[in-house]
Amino acid sequence: MLSAVVVGTGLIGTSVALALHGKGVAVHLRDTDPAAVRTAASLGAGMPQAPVGRVDLAVLAVPPALVGGVLADLQAEGLARHYTDVASVKAGPQQDVLALACDTAHYLGGHPLAGAERSGPLAARADLFEQCSWVLTPTADTDTETLNTVLELVSLCGAVPVVMGATAHDRAVALVSHAPHVVASLVAGQLDRAADRAVSLAGPGIRDLTRIAASDPRLWVDILSANAEAVADLLDSLAADLTDAVAGLRALAATDEAKRADGARTVEGLLVQGNAGRARIPGKHGSGAVRYETVAVPISDRPGELARLFVDAVRAGVNIEDVRLEHSVAQPSGLVHLAVAQSNASELEASLRGQGWSVR
Amino acid sequence: MLSAVVVGTGLIGTSVALALHGKGVAVHLRDTDPAAVRTAASLGAGMPQAPVGRVDLAVLAVPPALVGGVLADLQAEGLARHYTDVASVKAGPQQDVLALACDTAHYLGGHPLAGAERSGPLAARADLFEQCSWVLTPTADTDTETLNTVLELVSLCGAVPVVMGATAHDRAVALVSHAPHVVASLVAGQLDRAADRAVSLAGPGIRDLTRIAASDPRLWVDILSANAEAVADLLDSLAADLTDAVAGLRALAATDEAKRADGARTVEGLLVQGNAGRARIPGKHGSGAVRYETVAVPISDRPGELARLFVDAVRAGVNIEDVRLEHSVAQPSGLVHLAVAQSNASELEASLRGQGWSVR
Repeated sequence: MLSAVVVGTGLIGTSVALALHGKGVAVHLRDTDPAAVRTAASLGAGMPQAPVGRVDLAVLAVPPALVGGVLADLQAEGLARHYTDVASVKAGPQQDVLALACDTAHYLGGHPLAGAERSGPLAARADLFEQCSWVLTPTADTDTETLNTVLELVSLCGAVPVVMGATAHDRAVALVSHAPHVVASLVAGQLDRAADRAVSLAGPGIRDLTRIAASDPRLWVDILSANAEAVADLLDSLAADLTDAVAGLRALAATDEAKRADGARTVEGLLVQGNAGRARIPGKHGSGAVRYETVAVPISDRPGELARLFVDAVRAGVNIEDVRLEHSVAQPSGLVHLAVAQSNASELEASLRGQGWSVR
Repeated sequence: MLSAVVVGTGLIGTSVALALHGKGVAVHLRDTDPAAVRTAASLGAGMPQAPVGRVDLAVLAVPPALVGGVLADLQAEGLARHYTDVASVKAGPQQDVLALACDTAHYLGGHPLAGAERSGPLAARADLFEQCSWVLTPTADTDTETLNTVLELVSLCGAVPVVMGATAHDRAVALVSHAPHVVASLVAGQLDRAADRAVSLAGPGIRDLTRIAASDPRLWVDILSANAEAVADLLDSLAADLTDAVAGLRALAATDEAKRADGARTVEGLLVQGNAGRARIPGKHGSGAVRYETVAVPISDRPGELARLFVDAVRAGVNIEDVRLEHSVAQPSGLVHLAVAQSNASELEASLRGQGWSVR
């Protein structure tokens, strides 16, 4: 079995440690802040002591700008046979690693696509990475054993490995994460300058849109610094799109009918493109990193029917993540939605059918 | 008791009708599409027949551009004593109503701040407006009886009346709803032009940000048309903010340290302002218009305990909106979270305590 050191026990580091430790890996915790190590250890993430001898894998969960320097130090120390990091940008750390003449054969850059608005070890969860994409950026000189060790880490965390070049990765996360983060902050910033009465009308749409604007600004300055050009390029292109939208809207407000029709075409076009882009986002659940599937079971109004269903679901040996009753319980017959991890849905379905339930 | 006609049985009209009908109001349904009336009637929203004689209140649930014309027709017909509408913009309809020389004393503009990505009567819900803001735009010549009748409508729908001028309303909804809608569509539109592998990395952040970009483009062209100038002004200002952000990001990528520090200050400043704006958005739930509260009840591992809890919750006479079990059902003892409308939580809690449950 693998032995590992997690270096940096913030949200991501502690979550990695929890996942590994839960699977029986000997995990050592390390952080420049001893209090963070104690907190992570008390959560069951691993041992606060340094390992005796070299471990198999060191996971660097430090800010992107520190990856190169910390890797150089740890390799000089001889902490581990293989090294990876979990920084949210990859090209900058890769350049630093080369510039500092690290042993690049035994280092493989990684980025698990998970996170939360909260930070620090207390927000950590062993299942944070379950069914998430975990990007790996191997190069021509990456050692095969290093690749396999990091693939084992990804698998132990329940994530899905995706191999990409460092630059392609950084452009992709600029698109799906970093540029949207800035946009959410700017939209939220407009609210900060508005009158109370206007802000009081805010509903679920803008609340969801600006959710990520609640994140830690300093953490995000670090992330954006490491990917600034790619994010700036995307925001430049968004500014051009905004200018088109404004022109379309001004035309919509015109008195001239032909102009108005032109404006309507422009605005409808961008809304239709928004529909199309939105439809490409993976994951049907929309509320978290783990993707669930729902198994719907109609129940009759016989007393104890719901309890009987739960007992049978337990027999299926599948973890039920959530339960939702369609219609109020004032009407005892109805549809029970059992949410399970996507990979378990067909198993639960088969088991319930076998026990005499009809399943939708 | 009030009698009412709901004119236009889409999502909002049918939801108003369901709420009124559920409170014992005699509701007549009217739509240019007889199928929509039949659907709404079959959902229990009211009667498909025209009323005999004049009703108290006509609720116009038609697109903003049609409010003036429909009001003129209905007043000529003498359908109701008082009139209101539920259009999402207010200044344009108000101008139309004046231009068409309608009886403005007995018409009061309104806008319930609720909605959904879905549309049509099948998406309607009696509780759609519960605890939502419902803006009313009275003018100097609004009849007091009309104001009181519409206040009664708002109260029957469980919403909170907010009085504003039509123009202030339109600027406010441009800020909290219309401009963000365009922004979400543009961000989603960038995804439409991206490579598959990049889009596959999309996570919950951008999924929430672009949720509203899934809405019906034609409905939104109507909404944006009626408020185009206010939305264009806000997007112009957002484009300027974007330009600042791009400049900050380019500086962050500079080699000169003083320039980088400048860039970091700019970017951190806009992220901090985003934090502040985000924090001003009301509502703790973040996932829907209705605000729920959760009543947590520990249950033991006795067989049928969960079913017994449901039966007792039903006895409380409170609508249970959602049920969530903490921990998997593999462990039959645990905590059951019952979600109810905020206004019902203490009632449910008291009733369950009275029936011998301990409640957290």
